[in-house]
Parts: sequence; structure tokens; C-alpha cells
Amino acid sequence: MLIFVKKTGNLKTISSTHNSLVKQLIQLKDKSRERRKSGLFVLEGMRELQLAVSAGYEIQSIWFDPEIIALDQLMELTKVQNSEHYIQITKEVYQKLAYRQTTEGVIALVKSINHNLDQLTLSENPLILVAEAPEKPGNIGALLRTADAAKLDAVIIANPKTDLYNPNIIRSSVGCLFTNSVATASTEEVIEFLKAKGIQIHTAALTASVNYSTVDYNNPSAIVVGTEATGLSNKWLDNSDQNIIIPMQGEIDSMNVSVSAAIIIFEAKRQRGF
Amino acid sequence: MLIFVKKTGNLKTISSTHNSLVKQLIQLKDKSRERRKSGLFVLEGMRELQLAVSAGYEIQSIWFDPEIIALDQLMELTKVQNSEHYIQITKEVYQKLAYRQTTEGVIALVKSINHNLDQLTLSENPLILVAEAPEKPGNIGALLRTADAAKLDAVIIANPKTDLYNPNIIRSSVGCLFTNSVATASTEEVIEFLKAKGIQIHTAALTASVNYSTVDYNNPSAIVVGTEATGLSNKWLDNSDQNIIIPMQGEIDSMNVSVSAAIIIFEAKRQRGF
Repeated sequence: MLIFVKKTGNLKTISSTHNSLVKQLIQLKDKSRERRKSGLFVLEGMRELQLAVSAGYEIQSIWFDPEIIALDQLMELTKVQNSEHYIQITKEVYQKLAYRQTTEGVIALVKSINHNLDQLTLSENPLILVAEAPEKPGNIGALLRTADAAKLDAVIIANPKTDLYNPNIIRSSVGCLFTNSVATASTEEVIEFLKAKGIQIHTAALTASVNYSTVDYNNPSAIVVGTEATGLSNKWLDNSDQNIIIPMQGEIDSMNVSVSAAIIIFEAKRQRGF
Repeated sequence: MLIFVKKTGNLKTISSTHNSLVKQLIQLKDKSRERRKSGLFVLEGMRELQLAVSAGYEIQSIWFDPEIIALDQLMELTKVQNSEHYIQITKEVYQKLAYRQTTEGVIALVKSINHNLDQLTLSENPLILVAEAPEKPGNIGALLRTADAAKLDAVIIANPKTDLYNPNIIRSSVGCLFTNSVATASTEEVIEFLKAKGIQIHTAALTASVNYSTVDYNNPSAIVVGTEATGLSNKWLDNSDQNIIIPMQGEIDSMNVSVSAAIIIFEAKRQRGF
């Protein structure tokens, strides 16, 4: 990707919203296809940037509004010391790019990493969350927040409907996309992976009869949840060690998928002594 | 509220998006103040309407697009038999009013009910959720879904930031606003109410030291959660029987408020044998 910028002193500067790189950045925010093609994504906010840096993501450029944050402060906070990585932008450009106008004045262009299953490093007795085809970025974000709090070994998205770098996933995960080990693969691949590792598969299904709290999660375990609309595919139900259900007694009996997952995950944590 | 409509046969009809009642309905959707002033609110969708009817809400008018649903079918589904309550609208009017274009062609104007604490009917051994000043309608909706699934005695919103009939609360609760007993009051009033009833107050606080899963919820219990940003006010912490915490071990340790509440609620349900 070519960068068309002016240099002010030693610092690159973009002051026009019509700058071609501004347009490319917007494309990267809006279009999954552009992200896949370029291997780049956009993140916004200081905490998100710090977490991505400490997770080992390669930062291509950091765009900042000097009216909001000074370069030296930014360098200290991000630990990215090379000024070549920084691009100073005007308030107008920042407001064009930012989704929240009240933030820390920082947007970064970051290289995506490999999320293959074979990249995962698991503990000896792993506890894993698998979500099949989750549709709403906000749900994926909430799942990642819960996974961080529970310090799960991994979050695996089976048959993903969107790429992980969707800005709404990054935002709703409040940076937990970068604190978790996250993999994506087809349902078949995930099942094969779990079986090969001897990890028990516990599938949450409304058709199941076993109360989730009566199941033993002390051995290597994967908790598998489907979509709110259609649940899990038959492949999961056929290959599970145990189909489990959260007993519900209301009139609607429809909990948010991230809520259901959290209830089961924290029952497993309770059994494991946190 | 005056209704300016034509009658087609026995049926009222609105075909112009400039009709004054259309404008009033939009005001009721958008403005809490209008809802409070008129004692009316707007709901959308067949399930939501059915649940409101069976919860005893008084339906003022049901607006429908006959290209999507026929009057006789609608009458059968809603059990509202008096055709005086129905207003036929054109596709154009429906699309102006509906937030989701793919729904069942039904929008209703409904009288709000009293949500005072003294309206609540509790069981002998109640389990109650209290949320203080929840900000996001989506979080309130998710809390209501969980409360329905757990068949809680009541959901109490302390120091509400919005009225319960915010369209985003109705929508995100998938109708669970109408299946739960919901009250709103000031924090002081809620504390007084719980103490007068002998209900133990368990406050979720990041500063607490007692693991939520070590607490006994078998007696009358209220689980109290605050906002994600600022937690609970000191009044709650000072008046609680037990401050509790969900142990978190991640880097961010920030779960969604509806997720945290659900983890504690279902631990209480587990202890109570569901």
C-alpha cells in the first residue's frame, strides 16, 4: 500500500480527507474483502493499540490528532518508538475516520495475524470456547470479554460469518480480541482438532436433556455454542461427548448467546476452583 | 390523543406518511418525554404484541399492513377482537414507522402500566435482580431475557436512566419486558423495600473479596449489579449483606453487565435446584 503524505519536519502529515490513504483506511474499516486482500486492519483507541502491540501484532502506522494527544506521550504509551510509524492528522481527518468522536485521538493500521488452529498453544488441561457461525459482532465481542475474564485457553470460531477484524468486533471486545488466543476454522476441522487433542466436546443444545451443571468439566473441555436463531449444526450434536442444556423456566426462554456461554464457562471455572 | 383517520368500510385507514397520528407515533417512539406525557408507547412485532396482551396491557390501537397480514389472522393471533382497535396502513406508512422492514407488519400503540415497587407480587422465597442505572438499552434487554429464563420474581431498575418503553429496550428484550415483573424506583427506595421484606442484598462489586459462588442464595435474595463504567453507588455497598465478586483472571477483566448478572443468577438457580 502506497502512502501519499507530506512530511512536516520529520513527521508525516495528512490534512485532507480526500487523501487517497484516508480513503483506503475507510475501505479497510468497511470491507472484509479489503482486509483479506491487504492483510491489514484498522483499530481505534489507546487501550486497543497497547493490547495489540503487547500481543505482538505488527503496527504499520499510527495516526494521531496532535490536538488530542502529543507524539511523545503516544510513543511512551504504545512503546512504538520509531517516528516513521506515525502520521499526524488534522481534526477533520480524525473525525472522518473515528467511530467515536470522544476517544483518545489514535487510529492504527495493523497487520493481521494467522488464526489457524495449529497456532494455538493449549495448557495441559485446556478449557476452550467454540462458537459456531456467530452472526452479530457484538456477541463475538461479549464472548471474547468473557473468555478473557475466564482466562480460557482459546476461543475458536467455527464456520465464521465475518472476519475477526470487523471494527464492531474489535470495539465490542474492548480489546479482548488481542488478549485471547483466537482461531477460526470449519466445523469439521474444529471437531477433528478437538478429538485429536482428546478434548471433551460439550455442546449447548435446546434439545439436550442433561443439565449443564451436572457435567464434569475437570478434564480437557470445549464448550460449544451455536447461534440464537438456529442453534448448532448436526455435525456438532453428532460428534459431542455430551449435549447439555441450561434449564429455563420462563415464557420466552431465549438468552443471549454470550450470556448462555458465560453461564456454562463459569460453572466449569467453579468446578475447577477458579 | 385525537385520531385523524378515514374509514374504509368499518376499518380505519391511514395512507399518508404526513398524517398527524403517524407523526405522533414517531414522537412516541423517539421521545421518552412524549411517552411519559401521554402514558402511551409503541411496540412492534407479533410476538411482542401477543405478550403485551397476555400480560394485561391495554392496547389502544393496532396498526397493520394488510399486504403482510390479514385482519382476521391478526385478530386471531392477538385475541383483540374489536375492529375499532385496528388501523389499516399502507406499505409506505408501515415502512416509515417500522424499525425492521422484514417484520410481521404489526405496530401497536399501548398504554403504559405502573412500575412502582408496591405493584410487585413476590413468591415466599424470592430471587430478584436489581440493576442500578443501566445505561444501554441493549444491556437492559439482555438482563430481561436472562430474568425470564431464570423465572426471577422481579427485575428492579434502580435510578433508571431511561424509561422502560424505550423501543430499543422492547426490541432487545425480545418481548421479555412483558413476561417479567419489572419495577423502577430510586436506589434508596429499593434498599428500603428489600430490607422491609427481609431480602438479602448481594452486591456485585469489583472491590469485593467474597467469591460469588461461595455465597448461599437459598434464602430470599437480591442480586444487585451496577454499570460497567462505574459499578454500584456507595449506598448499595454500604447497605449490602454481602459484597460479592466474580473472580477474573484475564488481562482486561471486563465482562458485559448482563453476562456478569447471568453468571450470579444461574449460580443461585443451581444452588436452589433450578
